Amino acid sequence: MQIKFSNRHNVHKVAIIGASGYSGAELMRFLAGRNDIVITKAFASSSAGQQVDAVYPVFAGQVNLTFETYADRAADGADVAFVALPSGEAMNIVPGLLALVPRVIDLGGDFRLQSPDAYEQYYKHRHAATGLLGEAVYGLPELNKEAIAGARLIANPGCYPTGAILGLLPALKNDIVRPDSIVISALSGVSGAGRSNSLELSFSEVNENIRAYKVGNHQHIPEIQAVLEQVAGKPVPLTFVPHLIPITRGIYTTIYATLNAQLSPGELTYLYENSYVGAPFVRIKKQIPQIKDVVNTNYCDIYVTIEPRTQRVIIISVIDNLVKGAAGQAVQNMNIMLGLPEEQGLM
Amino acid sequence: MQIKFSNRHNVHKVAIIGASGYSGAELMRFLAGRNDIVITKAFASSSAGQQVDAVYPVFAGQVNLTFETYADRAADGADVAFVALPSGEAMNIVPGLLALVPRVIDLGGDFRLQSPDAYEQYYKHRHAATGLLGEAVYGLPELNKEAIAGARLIANPGCYPTGAILGLLPALKNDIVRPDSIVISALSGVSGAGRSNSLELSFSEVNENIRAYKVGNHQHIPEIQAVLEQVAGKPVPLTFVPHLIPITRGIYTTIYATLNAQLSPGELTYLYENSYVGAPFVRIKKQIPQIKDVVNTNYCDIYVTIEPRTQRVIIISVIDNLVKGAAGQAVQNMNIMLGLPEEQGLM
Amino acid sequence: MQIKFSNRHNVHKVAIIGASGYSGAELMRFLAGRNDIVITKAFASSSAGQQVDAVYPVFAGQVNLTFETYADRAADGADVAFVALPSGEAMNIVPGLLALVPRVIDLGGDFRLQSPDAYEQYYKHRHAATGLLGEAVYGLPELNKEAIAGARLIANPGCYPTGAILGLLPALKNDIVRPDSIVISALSGVSGAGRSNSLELSFSEVNENIRAYKVGNHQHIPEIQAVLEQVAGKPVPLTFVPHLIPITRGIYTTIYATLNAQLSPGELTYLYENSYVGAPFVRIKKQIPQIKDVVNTNYCDIYVTIEPRTQRVIIISVIDNLVKGAAGQAVQNMNIMLGLPEEQGLM
Amino acid sequence: MQIKFSNRHNVHKVAIIGASGYSGAELMRFLAGRNDIVITKAFASSSAGQQVDAVYPVFAGQVNLTFETYADRAADGADVAFVALPSGEAMNIVPGLLALVPRVIDLGGDFRLQSPDAYEQYYKHRHAATGLLGEAVYGLPELNKEAIAGARLIANPGCYPTGAILGLLPALKNDIVRPDSIVISALSGVSGAGRSNSLELSFSEVNENIRAYKVGNHQHIPEIQAVLEQVAGKPVPLTFVPHLIPITRGIYTTIYATLNAQLSPGELTYLYENSYVGAPFVRIKKQIPQIKDVVNTNYCDIYVTIEPRTQRVIIISVIDNLVKGAAGQAVQNMNIMLGLPEEQGLM
Repeated sequence: MQIKFSNRHNVHKVAIIGASGYSGAELMRFLAGRNDIVITKAFASSSAGQQVDAVYPVFAGQVNLTFETYADRAADGADVAFVALPSGEAMNIVPGLLALVPRVIDLGGDFRLQSPDAYEQYYKHRHAATGLLGEAVYGLPELNKEAIAGARLIANPGCYPTGAILGLLPALKNDIVRPDSIVISALSGVSGAGRSNSLELSFSEVNENIRAYKVGNHQHIPEIQAVLEQVAGKPVPLTFVPHLIPITRGIYTTIYATLNAQLSPGELTYLYENSYVGAPFVRIKKQIPQIKDVVNTNYCDIYVTIEPRTQRVIIISVIDNLVKGAAGQAVQNMNIMLGLPEEQGLM
Repeated sequence: MQIKFSNRHNVHKVAIIGASGYSGAELMRFLAGRNDIVITKAFASSSAGQQVDAVYPVFAGQVNLTFETYADRAADGADVAFVALPSGEAMNIVPGLLALVPRVIDLGGDFRLQSPDAYEQYYKHRHAATGLLGEAVYGLPELNKEAIAGARLIANPGCYPTGAILGLLPALKNDIVRPDSIVISALSGVSGAGRSNSLELSFSEVNENIRAYKVGNHQHIPEIQAVLEQVAGKPVPLTFVPHLIPITRGIYTTIYATLNAQLSPGELTYLYENSYVGAPFVRIKKQIPQIKDVVNTNYCDIYVTIEPRTQRVIIISVIDNLVKGAAGQAVQNMNIMLGLPEEQGLM
Repeated sequence: MQIKFSNRHNVHKVAIIGASGYSGAELMRFLAGRNDIVITKAFASSSAGQQVDAVYPVFAGQVNLTFETYADRAADGADVAFVALPSGEAMNIVPGLLALVPRVIDLGGDFRLQSPDAYEQYYKHRHAATGLLGEAVYGLPELNKEAIAGARLIANPGCYPTGAILGLLPALKNDIVRPDSIVISALSGVSGAGRSNSLELSFSEVNENIRAYKVGNHQHIPEIQAVLEQVAGKPVPLTFVPHLIPITRGIYTTIYATLNAQLSPGELTYLYENSYVGAPFVRIKKQIPQIKDVVNTNYCDIYVTIEPRTQRVIIISVIDNLVKGAAGQAVQNMNIMLGLPEEQGLM
Repeated sequence: MQIKFSNRHNVHKVAIIGASGYSGAELMRFLAGRNDIVITKAFASSSAGQQVDAVYPVFAGQVNLTFETYADRAADGADVAFVALPSGEAMNIVPGLLALVPRVIDLGGDFRLQSPDAYEQYYKHRHAATGLLGEAVYGLPELNKEAIAGARLIANPGCYPTGAILGLLPALKNDIVRPDSIVISALSGVSGAGRSNSLELSFSEVNENIRAYKVGNHQHIPEIQAVLEQVAGKPVPLTFVPHLIPITRGIYTTIYATLNAQLSPGELTYLYENSYVGAPFVRIKKQIPQIKDVVNTNYCDIYVTIEPRTQRVIIISVIDNLVKGAAGQAVQNMNIMLGLPEEQGLM
């Protein structure tokens, strides 16, 4: 027999700003079933006035909320606010939000880069809240768990950076690959582009098709590079090319780098396993992983091998872009900030 | 050795109005390779100024045209004009066009219904060229070849009506099913909705999904019904429900009706074969057809059987919605109007 | 704060026979996370000796079991045994199993038909355990909850029948449609055919394709018909045509029938809502449902309307074939048999 | 008016051995419509006795042939024989075939590697016709047109090698990239694995999924490497990783290499354009290409750029694996061997 005992003093109030996009919907999916969390507000200007289950019928009988227009002070009283807005919008809202809400988790790109210049170069508009860039903690728990626990503002990592960085962390921390040899070839599902009505994302254009995009200028390049350079303590002039694939969810990241050390494939796998002890959502695999292994979960599965012929390390990581690459990781960060078990509500 | 001998006096000039949509692109695909046809103009306001192969890279090296904005008299000199515009736009252009161009083929719905009231009810706006409704010939060659040959204005059939009517013509002509028993359950690929940036058609919404739509009020209902009632000589109160399926091209039509006569499955098949003698694009099949059998072709494959337990006739027809359901049929009509072999350029 | 208190006396032991197919994997997905259930055995001869998470990597860290070959008495000690074997195999195992295990739920077709002759006609082999046909309870909780609670042997409904019967139950119970007018046009995802290596199910054959199959002779026809005739108390000579659609999961069932009563669409919807009061997994919808609304859930969403022009009732039901159409419904049946809340572990 | 004049003396007789697979079907698609070619025999042991249009209904009314079992001397009288058999089978047939037929084009891997040891290492069985390895001409027309024209035996390139080699030829010929820096990340559709009933290729396993495979040991590695080393005149220790993507047709190849010269992106593009003057099926693109641009065509579209930040060259090539990657290229080779225009029947 299972007894659920909810102590009302410990139910945390959560607001979601930008709740009608795919990441917002995933946040609701992970939070709605919990008895230690209550979603008090779901803001979404484009869907304001509509019931959540009218926009997402899957939630019928599960989520009983109406989308509202966000306004100043509207999230007052929340213990945590998630911001799932397009880049360029969050930076206008977060400063005010931080005056009302003790913990803010931004799922967009506005607080991930420390450099306003890099931000402007890749995001194509000036940063409007540069004063917060120093304070924002990069919310990758496998790298920054302690800082996350004490943060007011989390910059939740991008989907591509999550897969790429988790794949490269142990290699760069342990200095076993040449930093100038790294090539990241990433394959993403369509939901990564958001809930969007672009012609380019229509089924007729995407199905039975593949295309690379933003070659050499994707906004996730400086994010990946900055984090890895901080880890490596030296420049990491990597190449990153994203490709759009006809799947809905998932990022498949294949990473190539030249080995910098004497190491067998078995030793490499062991090093990776060791690096992720205590990280409940990273699984080091003996077989080549596939998207299906992680869809709808918060796992990042990683496979590493060495090609003897070329002395190249080949690293493959897979995540669900909407979970470990967005909403799931945000919930993981929330758990850490609230002092809850990291995996609560995510298994 | 193959000698191609082109008599310049017999090269026909063709203009396409609305050339940048999927049907327009299909028209170019079928016409560009022919040496008895030259496309002189490709009008598409939304893409005006762009090379055709910039919008459709597949045409690089094959089609050397620039999209232009359509204006009065712009199609002057053409032997045939194809109009591939959204319903409601063609009716404003066609009257003027007919003063300049001897043959006009409208791929949209503006001239398919004889009744302006039915048009207004299903298309949600008043008809602006009712004077042409009586003259327009319904361009289904398997039904109206003679009238097509002499027509000035062709109403090219809708994609769903093409599959449904070809499936039912022999049964209703020969009075072997009860007209009040007909149920048409149709499954369409996404390109049927046009080259559109609707959120509802985005890959993330369509893949791994199915949904019926416009139940009871799809604008193809009166078109199917009017043609079949003309054939049957009595009311045909049919039910038609379209479904959106995650494929790009193709319409799969399953038709159910109660048998009205003593007939074996073999006799039924024979009757269908006989009905389509001389129709090069209708193939009566002994096996259940599939979309793959007709994709990229102008064929309509039809299978008929009788369920002894219920005495129902089950008819399945498959077409490529962009070919036999749109551009291919339009080219077939053009061939007939120009006195060319019906299948020229379509095999 | 959430306290989970497991009373060891109330942890139920479960064995799965045929655990490596898609239904078996779904059973593990729904059961592995529960603290009132423990899977003691996972039998799968084709994968015997392999770890579950080697065959299904998604279970890494979640399911720690090894597939075993099934043998006599191997499931001894289980409180419930699920049998997820191909039709024709279960009937050889179940009689012996019932001597050892107090509750058996067969997910295949072997115990769904009362008539051995109908079984032989549609399944193409003789029935080997006809003595159990009278005892087996048809495991559709929305129809038979009480009988399920006391049953030893459950015949878990087929995927198509679940969608079709739930869509028609209220209409036939209330005698509002003509029983001889029913047409069921059903669209299924590929996983309905099981974890199979058939060429016909390969991606290259299925994607961008649709085909009807087993027209007039699908083995689910007598199952649907028998249940509905029992409900209606008269013959229901229905037509059912299944179609294979390029999706992995889901069944979309569109049902057509002639109205037999004076009823408005609103009254019809109200009648359906009333019929399913107390059925936590049936949701009557005001909008046309889609597969995405129910994927990975145990819900059956139903939409009903009346076409005034034809006086036909159009009913649409959607389920996930692997959940409400198989494993989820089996767990729902298990919950009822064990006296647990019907929705335990399924929300 | 178009006059087709066929000189019967110049109709070439063609036999296809292994005609029922996807490559065989593509050969029939390209050859059946020509009036300078007649397919005299279609051999396919697995389908022997069946009409071609029973196996491929799309050919109904177009191909009137029956699959036959291949036997010694069965192809006697053909001007060209295509062999589309699994690797390991062709080498047993080709020696005998060459005694009867003046031109043999093998679409499989048996004659692509000069080294029997490399063959055995990657194909996992001994080579049985090593005497022909020296004579076989690697059938990449953009590299070997002259040798192809005079050859008796063509080893038609593999699908991955076609995309990879065409992408790298100009760079290696002109020594502008470091040969030890090349990484080839290739994405293939499912038809590349042939018409196969493997569970791994079933729709339920492939859709909404991605996986790399044969990392470091794919049999196309030595083929790509050998050709490129011959071109470069030095070792090219490249890395090649193939990925299976849920599309039916197409290979998307993204190539990364470190620039070895002072060159602007514009100069690089110009060098590529120059390298392929006279190659009618290679199109150098200014935009990032996509699979859709080449599906069903014999084109290879190539895009090249330089990433200034890393001084890496990024090359993208796209082909249809069944056309330029198999049957189309085989027809191109046949045209060259027969002295016909290279593009005959392929545009």
